[in-house]
Amino acid sequence: MLISELATPALVADSATIDRNVATMAAARPGRALRPHVKAHKCTALAGVQAAAGHTTFTCATPREVVGMAAAGLGDDLLLANETVDPLRLRAMAQLDIPVTVAVDSEATVTAAAAAGISRCLIDVNVGLPRCGVAPGEAGRLADVARRAGLNVRGVMGYEGHLMMVADREQRRDQVDESMALLVRAHADVGGDIVSAGGTGTFDLHDGNGVTEVQAGSYALMDTHYGSLGLPFEQALYVVGTVISVGEGFAVADVGLKALGMDHGNPSVEHGKVWFCSDEHVTFTPDATLTVGDRVRVIPAHVDPTMAMHDSLWLMRDDEVVDRWPIDLRGW
Amino acid sequence: MLISELATPALVADSATIDRNVATMAAARPGRALRPHVKAHKCTALAGVQAAAGHTTFTCATPREVVGMAAAGLGDDLLLANETVDPLRLRAMAQLDIPVTVAVDSEATVTAAAAAGISRCLIDVNVGLPRCGVAPGEAGRLADVARRAGLNVRGVMGYEGHLMMVADREQRRDQVDESMALLVRAHADVGGDIVSAGGTGTFDLHDGNGVTEVQAGSYALMDTHYGSLGLPFEQALYVVGTVISVGEGFAVADVGLKALGMDHGNPSVEHGKVWFCSDEHVTFTPDATLTVGDRVRVIPAHVDPTMAMHDSLWLMRDDEVVDRWPIDLRGW
Repeated sequence: MLISELATPALVADSATIDRNVATMAAARPGRALRPHVKAHKCTALAGVQAAAGHTTFTCATPREVVGMAAAGLGDDLLLANETVDPLRLRAMAQLDIPVTVAVDSEATVTAAAAAGISRCLIDVNVGLPRCGVAPGEAGRLADVARRAGLNVRGVMGYEGHLMMVADREQRRDQVDESMALLVRAHADVGGDIVSAGGTGTFDLHDGNGVTEVQAGSYALMDTHYGSLGLPFEQALYVVGTVISVGEGFAVADVGLKALGMDHGNPSVEHGKVWFCSDEHVTFTPDATLTVGDRVRVIPAHVDPTMAMHDSLWLMRDDEVVDRWPIDLRGW
Repeated sequence: MLISELATPALVADSATIDRNVATMAAARPGRALRPHVKAHKCTALAGVQAAAGHTTFTCATPREVVGMAAAGLGDDLLLANETVDPLRLRAMAQLDIPVTVAVDSEATVTAAAAAGISRCLIDVNVGLPRCGVAPGEAGRLADVARRAGLNVRGVMGYEGHLMMVADREQRRDQVDESMALLVRAHADVGGDIVSAGGTGTFDLHDGNGVTEVQAGSYALMDTHYGSLGLPFEQALYVVGTVISVGEGFAVADVGLKALGMDHGNPSVEHGKVWFCSDEHVTFTPDATLTVGDRVRVIPAHVDPTMAMHDSLWLMRDDEVVDRWPIDLRGW
């Protein structure tokens, strides 16, 4: 099948570009130095490409992602890098064949994990992003609580998400160093082998700072948001649309905000300038003459929620569709 | 089951509030004076409530919505208020037992519809929103083209989407009148019985202006965006979350931007003030002391894309879950 034969809107990724992005990252952070974050794609087939590149540990944001990865037999060490107190979901994760580690940042999350039979945790440390994570000075105390509850405390994690988009690389490095100093001090109090941090925007700023593994996900597919940072990863993902209307000075394609993560703003259109998105439309100025029925490529501003809005990712090589990957880790 | 027993994030709607919203609209625009837009909820069970209130005509934004409504046996007159040139999807709609009308705004869309066996259309007229729609002065000519192609031209439609959020009601009315004057003039050239327009924000501004039916959808569930207009519809929809972390001056719940339409900005939290959303988190200042495990209600800024992100809507009466409605019209 050719791309031009796909019903639209169609989520499409360039197979060779994914392979290059995954290889570039695997060279920079081989094996367990990267714990690929599957929340960015929610797709076990793509996680399989990351596994084939040598990564055997994975990061998840939801219990559903953990359970789905285990069902697909991917990885030998799955981390839920997030807090949950849901007893049913914790129990489901505890019963998997693949060892699961969960993040904890409070006595309540420790208690819930232990009660459900979870046996491994990381102490989640607040390194500057006001989200989850215990205050750095409290990490050691919480590790003691976790050990008393019977958990194996494998180390710490801290996500410097507030620094991913610092535009200047040197400034980004300095701020990451400050942030990671908090994590490393917490690690001294906590113990364990793991210091887990980072994301695509800071993947190459963790050498020699004590971080043992980076949790990056977006690098495999990329989006316009990360694209502005000059990272060594190329745009692989877009949504193919069909021009359904042409007005005076603008065209309209059938790729709307129900097909695009919009929290980072409007998408881009190849060979055009976006005006706005509606539920099922993008209105844009085309660089050249377009007619109804022409295909356009729309590039999402944020890859993670875009993936979660589609049930399939079409893989292409040149203009040919070579595979369909179910986006099988959606939901919670 | 109680709401407090639902796994989170959970999309929940108050059953009595839906009933009141639907009754209020049915009183203002009874029967065929309203063509409820199912894109707002993508849920045949909710469309069934609208049908029970006396509406037998429905508006859809995607072929999937049309096909799903027909499969559920809902309505006697379905409108795809959108353009498509997809031959397979047009053919699927043409073969349904329920009569389907499609919007056309170009010779290409007319030709595609006729070739696929579609027999009814509305001429989509640009009434000021730069999206789909033929220029008003071209509508009569396009109607002639459609009739020559064998289509039954039932009238016109025009969506004044750019006016939905004009804050002052009188100003909104004046601008709607100007916009609808364009549609009525086009209708004089086109002919047919239908002049279709409007949405929730302008549902009560179409009396005596020539519009025969209003395409409103959001009114049944509502969101914070429309909530700012002082309409006679109440908030029925929210996403229930669990507090998973409490920091200094803020709390974090497990309702993130993958569970919320974000194109109209951040959601609101009952009894709190939202700071920001991440993929799986909302960080907010709580009005009172919250502890890990507490439940919170998050109110989406935009109902339509929020519905499309969930597979089920839980119906509640007081604190009890009384039904689960599949969101079965998702996708394209």
